[in-house]
Amino acid sequence: MTQAEDKPRSRIQICEVGPRDGLQNETTMVSTEEKLALIARAIDAGIRRLEVASFVHPKRVPQMADAEAVVDGVEPRSDVCYIGLVLNMKGYERARETRINEIGTVVCATDTFAQKNQGQATWQESMEVAADIIRLATRDGRSAQATIGLSCGCPFEGEVDPGRVVEIAKTVADAGAVDIAIADTIGVGVPNQVRDLFDRVHDAVGDLPLRAHFHNTRNTGIANAWAAVEAGAKTIDASIGGLGGCPFAPRATGNVATEDLVYMLGRAGVETGTDLAKLIELAHWAGSLLGQPAASMVSKAGGFPS
Amino acid sequence: MTQAEDKPRSRIQICEVGPRDGLQNETTMVSTEEKLALIARAIDAGIRRLEVASFVHPKRVPQMADAEAVVDGVEPRSDVCYIGLVLNMKGYERARETRINEIGTVVCATDTFAQKNQGQATWQESMEVAADIIRLATRDGRSAQATIGLSCGCPFEGEVDPGRVVEIAKTVADAGAVDIAIADTIGVGVPNQVRDLFDRVHDAVGDLPLRAHFHNTRNTGIANAWAAVEAGAKTIDASIGGLGGCPFAPRATGNVATEDLVYMLGRAGVETGTDLAKLIELAHWAGSLLGQPAASMVSKAGGFPS
Repeated sequence: MTQAEDKPRSRIQICEVGPRDGLQNETTMVSTEEKLALIARAIDAGIRRLEVASFVHPKRVPQMADAEAVVDGVEPRSDVCYIGLVLNMKGYERARETRINEIGTVVCATDTFAQKNQGQATWQESMEVAADIIRLATRDGRSAQATIGLSCGCPFEGEVDPGRVVEIAKTVADAGAVDIAIADTIGVGVPNQVRDLFDRVHDAVGDLPLRAHFHNTRNTGIANAWAAVEAGAKTIDASIGGLGGCPFAPRATGNVATEDLVYMLGRAGVETGTDLAKLIELAHWAGSLLGQPAASMVSKAGGFPS
Repeated sequence: MTQAEDKPRSRIQICEVGPRDGLQNETTMVSTEEKLALIARAIDAGIRRLEVASFVHPKRVPQMADAEAVVDGVEPRSDVCYIGLVLNMKGYERARETRINEIGTVVCATDTFAQKNQGQATWQESMEVAADIIRLATRDGRSAQATIGLSCGCPFEGEVDPGRVVEIAKTVADAGAVDIAIADTIGVGVPNQVRDLFDRVHDAVGDLPLRAHFHNTRNTGIANAWAAVEAGAKTIDASIGGLGGCPFAPRATGNVATEDLVYMLGRAGVETGTDLAKLIELAHWAGSLLGQPAASMVSKAGGFPS
């Protein structure tokens, strides 16, 4: 066990995924300039790690068609890490031509999801592709990480064996991943499940930093984030305003909202280095961009004490 | 410490507060017949403890004007506990004339809130009134309990001293309360704060069962509920559909939604004796009653595996 006497860390890194995982699931098209403004404002609010683009085929995800332009447009800063998502070798070849800081890979933990999401036949293929990309990127002198999707369950196959999550984590760790995310892609996880998964993966990969990625689809996102903090996670993914889900959609599936997470962590005494008031402003701005109110709660209720 | 080796209980009682705390905060008037249908359907879904009425002045809370009629109309069952809220002696005199099973009192933990909510000059007066009602009810052969409002913070006075919450808990326990709720009335609490409060109050009142009452105003409700479970709480208040807040209101302040709580507990392996599918149906029905979709997440997303 590496998580320092089982106590939560006193500081958690927020990884802002709104510009990618958030916007990707929004139907309103957002311009490159608007994305760059969103990224710049997040940095101004204290965010230092951001998922800004996905190098997928523009026909599959039109919202991400400007990946190169976004990466070209962000302010180069030694204190900020920009992440670009890559699902296959073709995507990696595109990403390698840009000055993106970090390559993000995604392993789907079930066959059916791997087929539907990434055109891979099995979860093992999904794992091997990610490991290959990580090895290649590392050889190219670029850091790379992995997100283990469906860690808490799959919409097609139901429960996912935690042992498989551990096997994937070991494989991508051996390939050279700089961190590994346990991702509840469809928002079905609960706190004791999250705690168990983090404990198992920590045991398997030693000192490698773990990241948590939760969706609030069934209202367990913040509870799971706290469970991950207690389990020693170093980083938590979140999207400003809860981008990615629509409050009026029948099956809203937004990421945990950055401002909701920052409120909870701040009041719990965990440092994030971010400014809650600026994040709330940014959530409202992002909402106006998409023509809908932010799905988060703290953007409506405000902080405390206010 | 009474919480059995610090482990969560394997069974948690849900106290459905939608018919009172939920509806009280809704502007759409609900008829006695509709309230009785809501109560009957909750019981059919497995709920065995419900807050059904508040004996306050009808001019202050018009939605609760039919308190006597509601209590008169509910099905008498030896396995169901109906709670009526009482804020002062006048309210108790009304409640005593009905066949309500349990008297619920509320202590406001700050002077300003006691003045605004209950017309009491200080938190001490609020505590003494509750203790007097509990003693009287107990003498009359009726069980009585207490909810400590503002336990996690006050909108007017900010932080609340946990020592004061403990003092209130001791006082109402000495008066004969059958259980005590730690209530985050305005939804500002966070999990480690909740854990600390439950530990302190458990230490102060010994074996007396503790209840948790959270609002999801800042998206921490489910996280706080899990913290309360881990701290050994026996009962959690919740309202069907998250009644009490409006998804379109600028400062939504609904209770934790019953179906969101039941989903989380069920998947975490904690028994509640309730039927999630029936609760989701009921949330939709309650939403149609009020002409707005339920504020909960699980009513939109469904359970898992579905």
